[in-house]
Amino acid sequence: MSLFDSLFQPARIALIGASSDEKRTTSRPQRFLQKHGFKGEIIPVNPGRAEIFGVKAFKTIDDVPGEIDHAYILLNGKDAVAALAACGRRRVKVASILAGGFADAGAAGAPLQDGLERIVKDTGIRLVGPNSIGTVSTDPPMALTANAAFAVDKLRPGNWGLVSQSGSLIGALLSRADARGIGFSRLISVGNEVDLKVGEIADLLVDDPKTKAILLFMETLRDNERLARAARRAHAAGKPVVAYKLGRSDIGQELARSHTGAIAGSDATFDAFCQRHGIARVSMFESLVDVPALLVDRPPAPMGQRGGKRVAVATTTGGGAAMVVDNMAMSGLEIADPPRALVDWLKPLGIAAGEGKLVDLTLAGAKPEIVSGTIERLLADDGNDAAIFVVGSSAQFNPELAVEPLLKFAGSKKPFAVSLTPAAEKSLALLTAAGVPAFRHPESCAEAMALCLLRPTPQPEPKLAEPSNAAREALEAGRNGFDERKATALFAALGVPVAKSMAVPDARRVAAAVEAVGAPVALKILSADIAHKTEAGGVALGLPDGQTASVAAREMEKRVKAHAPAAKLDGFLVQKMERGLAEVILGFRRDPLVGPTITVGLGGVLAEIYKDAATRLAPVDEAEAMAMIGEVKGLATIRGYRNLPKGDVAALARAISAFSALAHPAFAAIAEAEINPLLVKSDGVVAVDGLVVT
Amino acid sequence: MSLFDSLFQPARIALIGASSDEKRTTSRPQRFLQKHGFKGEIIPVNPGRAEIFGVKAFKTIDDVPGEIDHAYILLNGKDAVAALAACGRRRVKVASILAGGFADAGAAGAPLQDGLERIVKDTGIRLVGPNSIGTVSTDPPMALTANAAFAVDKLRPGNWGLVSQSGSLIGALLSRADARGIGFSRLISVGNEVDLKVGEIADLLVDDPKTKAILLFMETLRDNERLARAARRAHAAGKPVVAYKLGRSDIGQELARSHTGAIAGSDATFDAFCQRHGIARVSMFESLVDVPALLVDRPPAPMGQRGGKRVAVATTTGGGAAMVVDNMAMSGLEIADPPRALVDWLKPLGIAAGEGKLVDLTLAGAKPEIVSGTIERLLADDGNDAAIFVVGSSAQFNPELAVEPLLKFAGSKKPFAVSLTPAAEKSLALLTAAGVPAFRHPESCAEAMALCLLRPTPQPEPKLAEPSNAAREALEAGRNGFDERKATALFAALGVPVAKSMAVPDARRVAAAVEAVGAPVALKILSADIAHKTEAGGVALGLPDGQTASVAAREMEKRVKAHAPAAKLDGFLVQKMERGLAEVILGFRRDPLVGPTITVGLGGVLAEIYKDAATRLAPVDEAEAMAMIGEVKGLATIRGYRNLPKGDVAALARAISAFSALAHPAFAAIAEAEINPLLVKSDGVVAVDGLVVT
Repeated sequence: MSLFDSLFQPARIALIGASSDEKRTTSRPQRFLQKHGFKGEIIPVNPGRAEIFGVKAFKTIDDVPGEIDHAYILLNGKDAVAALAACGRRRVKVASILAGGFADAGAAGAPLQDGLERIVKDTGIRLVGPNSIGTVSTDPPMALTANAAFAVDKLRPGNWGLVSQSGSLIGALLSRADARGIGFSRLISVGNEVDLKVGEIADLLVDDPKTKAILLFMETLRDNERLARAARRAHAAGKPVVAYKLGRSDIGQELARSHTGAIAGSDATFDAFCQRHGIARVSMFESLVDVPALLVDRPPAPMGQRGGKRVAVATTTGGGAAMVVDNMAMSGLEIADPPRALVDWLKPLGIAAGEGKLVDLTLAGAKPEIVSGTIERLLADDGNDAAIFVVGSSAQFNPELAVEPLLKFAGSKKPFAVSLTPAAEKSLALLTAAGVPAFRHPESCAEAMALCLLRPTPQPEPKLAEPSNAAREALEAGRNGFDERKATALFAALGVPVAKSMAVPDARRVAAAVEAVGAPVALKILSADIAHKTEAGGVALGLPDGQTASVAAREMEKRVKAHAPAAKLDGFLVQKMERGLAEVILGFRRDPLVGPTITVGLGGVLAEIYKDAATRLAPVDEAEAMAMIGEVKGLATIRGYRNLPKGDVAALARAISAFSALAHPAFAAIAEAEINPLLVKSDGVVAVDGLVVT
Repeated sequence: MSLFDSLFQPARIALIGASSDEKRTTSRPQRFLQKHGFKGEIIPVNPGRAEIFGVKAFKTIDDVPGEIDHAYILLNGKDAVAALAACGRRRVKVASILAGGFADAGAAGAPLQDGLERIVKDTGIRLVGPNSIGTVSTDPPMALTANAAFAVDKLRPGNWGLVSQSGSLIGALLSRADARGIGFSRLISVGNEVDLKVGEIADLLVDDPKTKAILLFMETLRDNERLARAARRAHAAGKPVVAYKLGRSDIGQELARSHTGAIAGSDATFDAFCQRHGIARVSMFESLVDVPALLVDRPPAPMGQRGGKRVAVATTTGGGAAMVVDNMAMSGLEIADPPRALVDWLKPLGIAAGEGKLVDLTLAGAKPEIVSGTIERLLADDGNDAAIFVVGSSAQFNPELAVEPLLKFAGSKKPFAVSLTPAAEKSLALLTAAGVPAFRHPESCAEAMALCLLRPTPQPEPKLAEPSNAAREALEAGRNGFDERKATALFAALGVPVAKSMAVPDARRVAAAVEAVGAPVALKILSADIAHKTEAGGVALGLPDGQTASVAAREMEKRVKAHAPAAKLDGFLVQKMERGLAEVILGFRRDPLVGPTITVGLGGVLAEIYKDAATRLAPVDEAEAMAMIGEVKGLATIRGYRNLPKGDVAALARAISAFSALAHPAFAAIAEAEINPLLVKSDGVVAVDGLVVT
């Protein structure tokens, strides 16, 4: 039996530690399997019972005859570990463990979790959890879970597959989706992800014909490469991947850390991950069940073809539609003017649709033929990229007026969504059942439309050329640590222009170096022992000639020796002074969750205060570097702002792309690197300082 | 009968243009009045009917005997105007008009609306609308409305009073509130606000014993002073005023303009209005019905005593609680550590609450005594300012476990809210009925708690001293327009330090002026005909001595004459060059909606790009000016950032306050004024340029 089938469609399930006491959580998996009509065989395992809920029970897993596809271990701590070992020996395909108290409990639980990991490695058994509240399929039904929400009377089938790092959230999302007529194909709580992780399970769902959209509730990211692959395969299969991730605030990140024992990473790098691999990230919890309907079968336009962001809006409630529009505009969407054909058609009905941006049908009342004729004309128009209809009070008691005429637009070629202003559950269910994406909050409707039109398509992963010999030599030169000279030499070898400079061993040779690089110059002390040159008095700027520079060098030597008597001094760096139109900072990091990243920010105190920067997974090609430049607000100053002179953004993009080549495995020894500042001139860019941390 | 009673508790209602055709909107008011058990007298007026829905009808309003408290005019256009005139003659207390097509229809409807205004003025009748979908009281019931949502079976009584500029939204909010067990005391659609406006009605609700919170749905603001008064009186009465206002985006503002024919004003100035007068502004639509429960009877702490923003969080769902925390942290709240007493109490139960920030009861399961003991200990602790309990799956099917034990905390001294992670309508209704603020979205729970703890108390309106004689003279001097010299003279007279300067009629006197003000100097051309001095070549900076300045003046004269041959030149301004640690821009405007405002921003291109500014109603006192300085992120550079030298923020606050005195009625002729830049030094501030627009 395949891994997918063992997980979601097992024929024989063992419940190790099953209880016959309905009050106990450990009784739930059997009760829920039975309640929702599991067609396979349930095998309770409990040393103290001969039968549980009408089914013969076994004393131990070893007593069970035949193959077992999936074992749910309902024991705690060491007993759970022992049960997993027994399952491994017994060649059970997949085991899930309910209990927490492993890595999620901090240092106390870590050794137990190590034990699980060893068993997985030794026996080849596949493990869900620990700390997994269960795995569920709806059709055919298989509710292998201890989550109280599955006490629901009927398990609604559907096409969303949910993978959650938070166990209780699978129940919460089930109930929220069910309340508005939406069902799931699969739901799985992955817990601590000792073995099976979000990425691998998402990857399985890509090939699941019952799953049309993959939903992720995430607290951390433990298998970035696998999830990236899954997201790309899902995209190719026309299945959107929609993610809600905790940790947008600093406190939220800390909490994710303490709650799951997981590393949280930075929020900006997770966004960069989503952007690269085409994952739609939602900000509202409710959006996780609301949004997919609008994204299914609507892949984002390929790179370079984007720009379709004009949404036509018609309504029977001006105020309700204005809320949707207000939220959409804040997400970067535009409102399309009503098409001429519609304006002319509505005029005899007394509706002047041409004047505002909205087509407000209120005056004509909510009449089916007007609503339907309006939507037809909106969807037929080339002047918009999508349409939204916002329904007012009639949706509550008279769906036949303005809701039923919308049903036939299900599956329209162009994205079409409906937003209901009142609480109108019946209309919501009607639309949902017909396959028309419908929303009960103006905020989630706007979020869905923004993701539908603006979400990224997976970006090609730039192929990195093998590092040049020069770059390898520069890397080798820094084997024992990089000072500024070695760092900038590496950047130069990567293809980033650096300021002309010369290193000299002592003050006597400074004047000659000034001749060579050209005045005016900057003079900097060279010493691997001094991290902060400026604080040590080891930097002098704007020296106009060789003589001045020589004097400055002698004084600098005295200052630095007084400041750091033990430091070994390696002479001076004489660097040509450069001036730019803007100072940029380029940062390269290895994020614990998503891997190498590159950040482009504006230099200077203000940009630091405003946190004005763009982050992407590294490497980036020049096109993506150009997109990053566009995201740094402060770089407007060199993109052509008012009368300010334009900077060479093409050269900046080349430098960003070249610098991002540090992501090549050959540079694995480099943990962090920074160019600060990189000066952007009207013609070219030049790096004047930088550091490399190994 | 009082205005309030005529509006909300009339004894005799006339329905002018009532219809007996159930399909027609104009039949609804009578049907809804009857359906919901209006105890007073309904008087249909229709020339073609003797009886409507079992009630005797009259041909005209003049045929109706006796007093009429409230007439709802259901006719269109000129007929509606004529009906209002008849009501006015007939001494009807209050009339409402349903029809739109007045100022909301642009220029075409304006004359009709003028007609209404004239009748109001001439007869003294009070008018709701036009474009009002109705006025409703729930207890005793009075559903005088054409909104379809009132076809609801039962009108739920409650304590929220809703005033809405969007008609259809009263129905949407009714249905949304009803769906989660919340009722209203009054609902009124104010339409175009020819006579009765949001402010006056809110003011009436302050004195309504049935109304405990005042909810506003706003598209514009037509009576800022009256609403300000109402908000302050509401605060004094312990009734929160909660507002949702459209127009957060530029497109949304444009829409509000075209939709209602109203001026939208800027969003920042509406925020300033809310801040000054203690109005809680919500950003989510659903929050409008969710949020008030947490604010009622919890006035914000008085100014200066704020800072209580530590929220303790306990939960039965780690992931669900993390969502609430993440959203709260983004709103500026902090998470309080669990109290020692709770940690010690939970330890024997196997719950290690001390390690993280959340108290996660999941391990102990959802048990009433644990939930209740936890909340008791949280509420008793001095280490937090409020508490939230986040309930997981058990809320859906087992409210007795973790929801019922919460009911007794209704009316707790400290703010206490419950967030439900699953869809759990029964639990929501239980909590709401008991008076425990409960939320079904993590986002609205966080928004409510942030407003509960951080919303402003109404700020005292600074008393403005009578302008000095110097200021009056400076104003008088600019009667025919302000050039830079006159503008800065006015600012100096208001008490803003300005750079030392001297005006001279020609280039020959420049050298003497340099002696007088002290070198180095800036030299500027003086001419009321030249708006942009720099572009005209009329500014020279950093001139080191009198001789250089004289030469510069002659060259400047030539340049300016070449650039603007027709301009009348009035000589030169010789100004001492000043240097500051930061450049600030102070702007004074008269906003069409909220009146005089003052904006403090950082000077320079970057601050402009980042839109980094704080806006308040003018005038402001020094304390509020200090709060504004704190809101301008970029001013961190002078508040003590890293090793940067500190600027004289106290002097800056004095200057802001002094400048804001332009709000005094004596300066009504001044439409706009700007100081750009105001230099902040380590000791004092100095204005070096400015303009005044009359």
